[in-house]
Amino acid sequence: MVIADKDELRNFAEAILRANGMQEESARLSADVLLAADLRGIDSHGVARLSGYVRLKEKGRANFNPTWKIIHETPSTATLDADSGLGLTSAQEAMRIAIQKATQCGTGWVSVCNSNHFGIAAYHAMLALPHDMIGIAMTNASPLVAPTFSNERMLGTNPICYAFPAIDVPPIVVDMATSAAANGKLEIAQRTGKSIPIGWVQTSQGEDSVNPEELKSGGSLLPLGGHKGYGLGAIVDILSAVLSGANYGPWVPPFVSFLEPLSDLPGTGIGHFLGAMRVDAFRPKTDYYNHIHNWINRFKQSQRINSEQEVLIPGEPEYRETILRSKNGIPLTAAVANDLEQLSQRFSIPARWS
Amino acid sequence: MVIADKDELRNFAEAILRANGMQEESARLSADVLLAADLRGIDSHGVARLSGYVRLKEKGRANFNPTWKIIHETPSTATLDADSGLGLTSAQEAMRIAIQKATQCGTGWVSVCNSNHFGIAAYHAMLALPHDMIGIAMTNASPLVAPTFSNERMLGTNPICYAFPAIDVPPIVVDMATSAAANGKLEIAQRTGKSIPIGWVQTSQGEDSVNPEELKSGGSLLPLGGHKGYGLGAIVDILSAVLSGANYGPWVPPFVSFLEPLSDLPGTGIGHFLGAMRVDAFRPKTDYYNHIHNWINRFKQSQRINSEQEVLIPGEPEYRETILRSKNGIPLTAAVANDLEQLSQRFSIPARWS
Repeated sequence: MVIADKDELRNFAEAILRANGMQEESARLSADVLLAADLRGIDSHGVARLSGYVRLKEKGRANFNPTWKIIHETPSTATLDADSGLGLTSAQEAMRIAIQKATQCGTGWVSVCNSNHFGIAAYHAMLALPHDMIGIAMTNASPLVAPTFSNERMLGTNPICYAFPAIDVPPIVVDMATSAAANGKLEIAQRTGKSIPIGWVQTSQGEDSVNPEELKSGGSLLPLGGHKGYGLGAIVDILSAVLSGANYGPWVPPFVSFLEPLSDLPGTGIGHFLGAMRVDAFRPKTDYYNHIHNWINRFKQSQRINSEQEVLIPGEPEYRETILRSKNGIPLTAAVANDLEQLSQRFSIPARWS
Repeated sequence: MVIADKDELRNFAEAILRANGMQEESARLSADVLLAADLRGIDSHGVARLSGYVRLKEKGRANFNPTWKIIHETPSTATLDADSGLGLTSAQEAMRIAIQKATQCGTGWVSVCNSNHFGIAAYHAMLALPHDMIGIAMTNASPLVAPTFSNERMLGTNPICYAFPAIDVPPIVVDMATSAAANGKLEIAQRTGKSIPIGWVQTSQGEDSVNPEELKSGGSLLPLGGHKGYGLGAIVDILSAVLSGANYGPWVPPFVSFLEPLSDLPGTGIGHFLGAMRVDAFRPKTDYYNHIHNWINRFKQSQRINSEQEVLIPGEPEYRETILRSKNGIPLTAAVANDLEQLSQRFSIPARWS
């Protein structure tokens, strides 16, 4: 395990993207999203993905200098063609448009097509918070999850994030995959060689499995809580792709560059859905902030099952991890450190923490 | 088991509401929501609740002839004070406003305070469908669900519904409680004396339980899939109540009239959140309909685990049940039939099916 300083890691990620031809502002904004994941403890979505983005670019599947285009709009909505860019930046652009529209007419909603992986949903949703707005971010993703009664990978882990602003206390941030477990949790079990709970994956034949390697032999992830998670994943898929013109369902292009997209695609790239709602579009701002504060206080005081284990507000663990890792550095597994070391050598960018 | 014709049952519900002083149009619209639940097979939310609404009115907690008022608005949003009316109608009024705003500026979003139970979410969300709009409906509800690490009832079963329009095939309708199981499922287990799966409820001490009667001895419902369901329930609570000025968390007034609301309430009544999005606010209508059709077709063709068990589209079981029950009648349990018989006698409204 290597510990990297957050600024060193951020600058490294930015320099690698620059070395691959990405322009300065985009590289900065992209590195911000990756670092936010590493700070929040979502290790699977941080710099661990850097080499994956580079490989997508080298395969010609990601455009590091896209020209975004609004292809449809109304006062409260827009559809953005991301020109094969990374979702890391196109989702930020979509959120900028959503915030602008919300400023004008209360809410703003942007569906994005022709994009690639956008990192953690929370980063994008939280862009709304400084504007006294609720932020919403969703994306579809490479198919890994089977619908109820099926053993075919038809949906991604399709995350949903809602971020609610608060004053003096951390915001409420719900950021969740709509599968029972995100892929990152399987990877942790793989590294430690542990079995996983029933309900996370099924075999290629649709049987229960506790094997974290099950996806490698044709298995699939299971939706959160059975058919309800299938429904939630479907909502994300339709808002992100059927609305925007992106690919959906089994046609969503795989993130890993060694798998080719299917032929006869019904859309372009992957899709995202971003939203912003002004809190004062519903009631005076001070009333909202007083009551969200009261909500948080009351839930913190929920009666505990075990007096040692406090009740947490959604987003609180990630907020605390951010403070800890900002101070103590970001732990990198040997596999990730090795991956970054290879990027370092290939692009002659020093990895100062190693 | 009694079988009631849908029109007889609808007219009976309407007549009971009229006999309790509700005006004609409101009684008709309210009866429509109850019958939609019975037709869709959501027996817990149909005419089984009729006597509960009447008792709330008799207790002075529900106003059968409310004067709704928009207390805040922007071009794409509104906040509606439901004047202690039933959610059965105030949610329909909120949806009417949302649809009007979506017609003007692409999307419309209405948060409702000072309301009461709104029946099934799907009825309200589906009001958007004939307008070529996606409908969204959520509501908070009496506290029964404990947050993760807590054994206190802090959230309702807080359902979320998204309805997506389609042509020539049934719409996609995801309508789900954010608890692991809705109360209705416990009631079915209670009637048959069966134990329930681990993960639905916990004891008053926060221990696993398979007892469907657990809530009667201080137990609580568990959120869908653990902390994710807690997050989803929180989203619904905040959008429905912190935005509107309704009560939230443990302060949501109980539906049952024999339990009094808490004192020192932070808001008024219960809250709902309704939304409408024009599909052509994102892409041309024909493109949307072609692709939603393709989505449905492809998911119907998902590889089956068991060749006899087809893969279902969200909302498909309820759609089929509606066709069946429209033809064959609506089955009423002895308890519900007895409840309706008592209403029949008290208000001298014949119950023609009995």
